[in-house]
Amino acid sequence: MNWLRPLAAGAYRVPFWAQHRAPSCPLRAFAAHPENQVAEGVVKVQQPKAQLGTDEGKKNFILKTPKGTRDYSPKQTAIREKVFNTIISCFKRHGAEVIDTPVFELKETLMGKYGEDSKLIYDLKDQGGELLSLRYDLTVPFARYLAMNKITNIKRYHIAKVYRRDNPAMTRGRYREFYQCDFDIAGHFDPMIPDAECLKIVHEILSMLQLGDFLIKVNDRRILNGVFAVCGIPDSLFHSTCSTVDKLNKATWEDVKNEMVGEKGLSPETADRIGEYVRMPAGGLGLIEQLLQDPKLSQNKLAREGLGDMKLLFEYLTLFGIADKISFDLSLARGLDYYTGVIYEAILLQPQNAHKEEPVGVGSVAGGGRYDGLVGMFDPKGRKVPCVGVSIGIERIFSIMEQKVEASEEKIRTTETQVLVAAAQKKLLEERLKLISELWDSGIKAEMLYKKNPKLLNQLQYCEDNGIPLVAIVGEQELKDEVVKLRVVATREEVDVRRENLIEEIKRRTCHP
Amino acid sequence: MNWLRPLAAGAYRVPFWAQHRAPSCPLRAFAAHPENQVAEGVVKVQQPKAQLGTDEGKKNFILKTPKGTRDYSPKQTAIREKVFNTIISCFKRHGAEVIDTPVFELKETLMGKYGEDSKLIYDLKDQGGELLSLRYDLTVPFARYLAMNKITNIKRYHIAKVYRRDNPAMTRGRYREFYQCDFDIAGHFDPMIPDAECLKIVHEILSMLQLGDFLIKVNDRRILNGVFAVCGIPDSLFHSTCSTVDKLNKATWEDVKNEMVGEKGLSPETADRIGEYVRMPAGGLGLIEQLLQDPKLSQNKLAREGLGDMKLLFEYLTLFGIADKISFDLSLARGLDYYTGVIYEAILLQPQNAHKEEPVGVGSVAGGGRYDGLVGMFDPKGRKVPCVGVSIGIERIFSIMEQKVEASEEKIRTTETQVLVAAAQKKLLEERLKLISELWDSGIKAEMLYKKNPKLLNQLQYCEDNGIPLVAIVGEQELKDEVVKLRVVATREEVDVRRENLIEEIKRRTCHP
Repeated sequence: MNWLRPLAAGAYRVPFWAQHRAPSCPLRAFAAHPENQVAEGVVKVQQPKAQLGTDEGKKNFILKTPKGTRDYSPKQTAIREKVFNTIISCFKRHGAEVIDTPVFELKETLMGKYGEDSKLIYDLKDQGGELLSLRYDLTVPFARYLAMNKITNIKRYHIAKVYRRDNPAMTRGRYREFYQCDFDIAGHFDPMIPDAECLKIVHEILSMLQLGDFLIKVNDRRILNGVFAVCGIPDSLFHSTCSTVDKLNKATWEDVKNEMVGEKGLSPETADRIGEYVRMPAGGLGLIEQLLQDPKLSQNKLAREGLGDMKLLFEYLTLFGIADKISFDLSLARGLDYYTGVIYEAILLQPQNAHKEEPVGVGSVAGGGRYDGLVGMFDPKGRKVPCVGVSIGIERIFSIMEQKVEASEEKIRTTETQVLVAAAQKKLLEERLKLISELWDSGIKAEMLYKKNPKLLNQLQYCEDNGIPLVAIVGEQELKDEVVKLRVVATREEVDVRRENLIEEIKRRTCHP
Repeated sequence: MNWLRPLAAGAYRVPFWAQHRAPSCPLRAFAAHPENQVAEGVVKVQQPKAQLGTDEGKKNFILKTPKGTRDYSPKQTAIREKVFNTIISCFKRHGAEVIDTPVFELKETLMGKYGEDSKLIYDLKDQGGELLSLRYDLTVPFARYLAMNKITNIKRYHIAKVYRRDNPAMTRGRYREFYQCDFDIAGHFDPMIPDAECLKIVHEILSMLQLGDFLIKVNDRRILNGVFAVCGIPDSLFHSTCSTVDKLNKATWEDVKNEMVGEKGLSPETADRIGEYVRMPAGGLGLIEQLLQDPKLSQNKLAREGLGDMKLLFEYLTLFGIADKISFDLSLARGLDYYTGVIYEAILLQPQNAHKEEPVGVGSVAGGGRYDGLVGMFDPKGRKVPCVGVSIGIERIFSIMEQKVEASEEKIRTTETQVLVAAAQKKLLEERLKLISELWDSGIKAEMLYKKNPKLLNQLQYCEDNGIPLVAIVGEQELKDEVVKLRVVATREEVDVRRENLIEEIKRRTCHP
């Protein structure tokens, strides 16, 4: 018997970012999810008379997420999960443990750690009790955790959302609530070995995500300190000058010089002296040697230390085979105050969708460095725990991935369902419930339509829409014959399977180790 | 050559909750993590002179997490991950998609949804712009998401932290920041089919977690509505009376009656009439039939509907083979206002660690129900989207799991590292870096000590401490012979492996499909 009208089979392909790693085992079919992409949509609502309370009358309110935040639809979380899996598998490959900390901290814990950026911290309302703030990054909570638990040696990762009351630019992946994926190594070790591993991790992740060509800029706060010192900048202006220099990746030297002279009060001559260093072409060992020969800079102890370690770092990166993607760049300064040694930042080198009208802005997708003083700020006795780490910025990567998926017309499955339990005729709800229960209990991912008497065509259409590869059909004749008709959605092939062999048969057809 | 002092091999076992599912593939060896369990520790700190700012001088502050919150140590996140994996695999088995929403919502979005509990909502400080609150559960954000994106049909799960300014009781797993694992089905379907699936899910999860015997209480808001109506309670007191009745699982009938009469202003006779119903022994089909015969209650339209659906629900649960764990219980009322139909709550039936001095308090570990009106409260035209869902409460389950692990003296691995790259003599850092880089690039989880010249004994001890099953040792002789010495930590067996075969050999020894 064949009561099945053939349906057009969808063209499912494995997306580029899934090819290098196998998920558990479902059939590699991907189906579009029909729903919403209206994450930023705003709807004016005339709220109906509240059904649940009497104190809530009619009033207008805006149906939206808070400014600078967004929901993730099933399609978006599916893409996000692939990115996370790539990052997590890398962090695990490097032997990291996991910790988690609360989304808010005592306000005092965050105070005095972020310099000028402290104004971007979200505070909670004083409702009695402690004064709290939402975390601004995962680094300060990590340092607080180490000091509180007297941990002097750990390698951990932490993936979580952080909060900044910044000006959002959501089309370019800049949000007020966003994920950071942090990997840090804490402990007293020999120079540059953990630092080099952090850079290896950035290299592995950006390579696996296939985001196109990238470059990792490195510098060292000690070298910058030496540069500023020989140019005549007082120590008290060090962090402030770092902030200004850090703008070189977006602004011209003239703008940066103007800020130094106009806002920071440096003389034009001092600014020009700084310019001579930070505008040097980025490089590798050559630039290091050049600076080590520099008559003024080579007299500065911190700079000499930093340059020596930079040389060591490049040796290790060469052994890792990744030195070609690393660029020693004196213009890299990083914004945050707490860095004390090596700093780095990874940038994507070209727009991913140059052919599209609005390319995703190219920019920093990872950054980090060494912060040897932060834990000591929390420790009762000021004991230092040297740390180095890296933070992968996910939102920009998501934006690129989303655009790639859209451009490629790949269908993304948002579920992993292996089989739909369907009925060929009416009055078979009980049989469907019994069968699906058996499948669930055997670990098979199964769905059914929540109708007493769904039409077969609707059941098959549901499989098409959701990329479900198999249909287990119960019918009157099949019940008599003690079989279930198993239909392969892509090929429309149908085969009667004895009821007792069904689970094995489904597993065989959906898992290809 | 054998320069290796034998070390005591740890006794690693697979923990009970890991036996039913295989993680990716690492050796199933579990090692204790030496660090911290001082999650709730409080340290008085004399803050050292701030190194990074000048506006932060010396002052006392408390080094702690905010009240009612905690950090998760690596050991705790490892246990947590197993619990999450069990829950997520169940949600996926039932074909759920994933969505995510921001941690805060517009304050207005949460207003008028939680009744008396609204006072427990965390508000953010008004720093200019929108008024925001931290989410109190995942249900209201889900309903807001559906209305905003005009979604009328979805099955999704969402695992995230929620926030309640409640009185914390952390030893019993009650926190101010805690996880909820929500599964919900939205859409217009035939009665009780999705509702039954939610109960099946609770049953599957509690069975797989092996938390001991459990019971799922069910009731229906429509039946309660009928009961209260025939007892003479006005509609306006319905939610308030539900709150009071809901206390029956912790308080005696006398206390509950006192609250009805003293605080809610009911007459003692009215309270007693309610008592006659809500104190009926819980049951199944028998109780349903008894109530359908009740001369007063059977006259109430809502109650008849609710009882009819309850009968249907039990039919479906019987087909699922789980009716023995389900108890129709008129004393179950649930606290939140938004339920409109079936409600349920799962409790563990006995203390898990009765032999220990402080048993984990037995209580509710899952709850949920039908809320057909909530989405309509957000929709501009009041269009309703019927929903039913369940929320798994994780903290209490974590507490039990943690105690079980501690009692069993199982060693929990907090990393998945397969191999440590070690050196037999000094001056082999370069060789270690080259080798580990190859291993990482082949997808092998590898670590090395961050020392230039670590002692072999320290390297082997690191493997013991962290449950790393293999050591790849480079030595001078091995380099000459173009081999690597592979040592199995548990058996101390050593074998020379040709360098070009090493990756294959490690994979062979650590993956058992």
